[in-house]
Amino acid sequence: MKNMVSIGLLGVGVVGSGVISLIEQHQAKLAHQLGCNVHVKSALVRNPNKTRDVDAATNGTVLTTNPDDVLNDPEIDVIVEVMGGIEEAREAILKAFEAKKHVVTANKDLVALYGAELHEAAARNKCDFYYEASVAGGIPILRGITDGFASDHIEQLLGIVNGTTNYILTKMHHESVSYEDALKEAQELGFAEADPAADVEGLDAARKMAILGRLAFSTYIDLEDVDVTGIEGIELEDLQHGDNLGFTMKLIGFAKFDGKQVEVNVEPALISKDHPLADVKNEYNAVYVYGEAIGEAMFYGAGAGSMPTAAAVISDVVTVIKNMHRGVTGSQFVEPRFKKELKPVDQRFGQYYIRFHAKDEAGVFSRISSLFNEFDISFKQILQNPSKEADTAEIVVITHRSSLEKMQQALGALNKLDEVPDIKSFYKVEGDAEA
Amino acid sequence: MKNMVSIGLLGVGVVGSGVISLIEQHQAKLAHQLGCNVHVKSALVRNPNKTRDVDAATNGTVLTTNPDDVLNDPEIDVIVEVMGGIEEAREAILKAFEAKKHVVTANKDLVALYGAELHEAAARNKCDFYYEASVAGGIPILRGITDGFASDHIEQLLGIVNGTTNYILTKMHHESVSYEDALKEAQELGFAEADPAADVEGLDAARKMAILGRLAFSTYIDLEDVDVTGIEGIELEDLQHGDNLGFTMKLIGFAKFDGKQVEVNVEPALISKDHPLADVKNEYNAVYVYGEAIGEAMFYGAGAGSMPTAAAVISDVVTVIKNMHRGVTGSQFVEPRFKKELKPVDQRFGQYYIRFHAKDEAGVFSRISSLFNEFDISFKQILQNPSKEADTAEIVVITHRSSLEKMQQALGALNKLDEVPDIKSFYKVEGDAEA
Repeated sequence: MKNMVSIGLLGVGVVGSGVISLIEQHQAKLAHQLGCNVHVKSALVRNPNKTRDVDAATNGTVLTTNPDDVLNDPEIDVIVEVMGGIEEAREAILKAFEAKKHVVTANKDLVALYGAELHEAAARNKCDFYYEASVAGGIPILRGITDGFASDHIEQLLGIVNGTTNYILTKMHHESVSYEDALKEAQELGFAEADPAADVEGLDAARKMAILGRLAFSTYIDLEDVDVTGIEGIELEDLQHGDNLGFTMKLIGFAKFDGKQVEVNVEPALISKDHPLADVKNEYNAVYVYGEAIGEAMFYGAGAGSMPTAAAVISDVVTVIKNMHRGVTGSQFVEPRFKKELKPVDQRFGQYYIRFHAKDEAGVFSRISSLFNEFDISFKQILQNPSKEADTAEIVVITHRSSLEKMQQALGALNKLDEVPDIKSFYKVEGDAEA
Repeated sequence: MKNMVSIGLLGVGVVGSGVISLIEQHQAKLAHQLGCNVHVKSALVRNPNKTRDVDAATNGTVLTTNPDDVLNDPEIDVIVEVMGGIEEAREAILKAFEAKKHVVTANKDLVALYGAELHEAAARNKCDFYYEASVAGGIPILRGITDGFASDHIEQLLGIVNGTTNYILTKMHHESVSYEDALKEAQELGFAEADPAADVEGLDAARKMAILGRLAFSTYIDLEDVDVTGIEGIELEDLQHGDNLGFTMKLIGFAKFDGKQVEVNVEPALISKDHPLADVKNEYNAVYVYGEAIGEAMFYGAGAGSMPTAAAVISDVVTVIKNMHRGVTGSQFVEPRFKKELKPVDQRFGQYYIRFHAKDEAGVFSRISSLFNEFDISFKQILQNPSKEADTAEIVVITHRSSLEKMQQALGALNKLDEVPDIKSFYKVEGDAEA
């Protein structure tokens, strides 16, 4: 057993700085658990002269601009990749595995895109590869799924896995502000990037759902398998109608596996206020797991932030060092058990929320409900009010469970009705008793 | 690596039956993860002829009334103890360790009372000892704390860790029924035992908090170190006043460690409705963790039930078998890092809820608030209404943060005031911004 394990860090941004300072701060706890000291020996940076949150020099960490100084240092056992980006990070990690170094990363983009390749490179070199921090920051959700549900069949996951969009939707819901105003506030407070596209378009959530789905269902899920709809263009009106009907709008990552076919998507959905996910507010994240035996369980916490993410990174480093001491590194990877098979759209089911305008004349509502009836769709909740336009009513319905294919056909037919000038919005409903 | 790992089961009640049937049901998943089959070879029962939820014989499990048939069988590697009780279970587990068998248990009473002894026996014999199912059923909270927070300093835990009391308090809160009626309903639905003492007096929660505190703070916490108050005698009135002031009554397990002194207790407390624990309803459990780096995280799920508990037991069996294959059994135990030091009552702080009656005369309220002021206690929220008795007001206050010692002195002084005929109730307040 080594007296000192040396870490090589790739990137000293906010997360990297957090890693350096947490390791210094918790030396005693780490040494007690591991029976050895842990030290960040060197770190790859773009500009060694930049002012940082942590003074690497006082911690004895050497900064370098040459990746090989870190990746080829024989004293370094574990590489922590927190530089972000894709191609450069991928190359560095593959190089690290070839040099027989274990890798811990927080890089969800990379794991979502190249998880299979990286796992195989790790296994080939008998190295560990962990990425707890890549999904939901400080929440130990990947461990929870792989270890806690080891003997259970996970049927479904619902996740609020993007803090930016959850912050925006919470603002809209609780303060009745528009999407644009809520986004602006999130940007001012640092909860949204200047270019918020990856968050608000749902891509960030999709990456995390691909990683979660892979681990939960033991099948490779590629990013392109995840159907994604973002929260742009969500109207306050739909949040308010949803609220009146007992629902809260959330950007929900949904992953389901029936033992054969898998279905993963990310979309804004109305979730019943009785469901614990409806209470997950502001920038918080949560993943709700439906296990056959365990039943319902939820993991909740800060989904981002430099310290939560750094702490999750170090929890992986602790696991790697324990494996090193026991001589069992490289043994965590298990080939996926199932060949991926995607569920066709016509076999996807759900409850839905529809808002549309209809002429306020005798017989119109009855014509509309018979139209839905033809597609085997019936209404569970109905809300009708006069619309702003003369002689027109605004109708909001929540349907009973139906197939998505029939729902799309019904909406097509509804759109052709003369009495229905406009279908305003359409959302999935989750967490209702029958969903 | 063995082709078949044999389990010996102690007890085939509801959890034991669940263990047998889940292992049968998930053979393929277990074999895929572990590279071997898992089989319950024999099981200790009191009465082999009793009708059970699972037909052990069809699963090839041999029932026996002689513990040695299970504990001394050289083919058996892992003992699963789900017989409950204390002395008999303790003896059997110690015997199992002497026979070099690994042990998984769901027995919180035993782990809370004899955890230190059992861990030491396991370590001496290089055996594994796991008990995830002993706290909060299917929720992987022990793994979450030990692995997920490995690099963080856990400052505080708040737990709703008893489903029976949470069910009763939820009923009282949402349906305005009395404690007695809610208990009766819980008994009829099977959420409370015929003799509910261990649950409603808080003992069950105290056992779980002792186990959680030990793992979170790396110090031995004995059951007798946990101050316990149950939910008996809680009046609907206090739930209603709490509700009006923005709080929900829960039986809260509280554990705090400042790096030196530890404080663990279980008591009914009012928790702010803004806090995620306030939304944990019915028989559900949740543990809320405050980590220095990770921030706030919550683990939520079914706290009991035969299948969730059985699934947690098998997740531990999976861990043990992985350790066996890697040749690293017996290495998980780490001596507690800190010597136990309990925080004296006069150094415990909190916010408090007090309800009392006072004469409805000029100057009385001002006298009362100066009395509290003398003990450095000020009020954050006040609710005053005429009481049912003539010329008397009912006053409810929520205080700012103060020391418990001063609070007890203030209540003593209040009780002596002629103008205050009655102090009706006194509860801690949790989850408020300043708490």
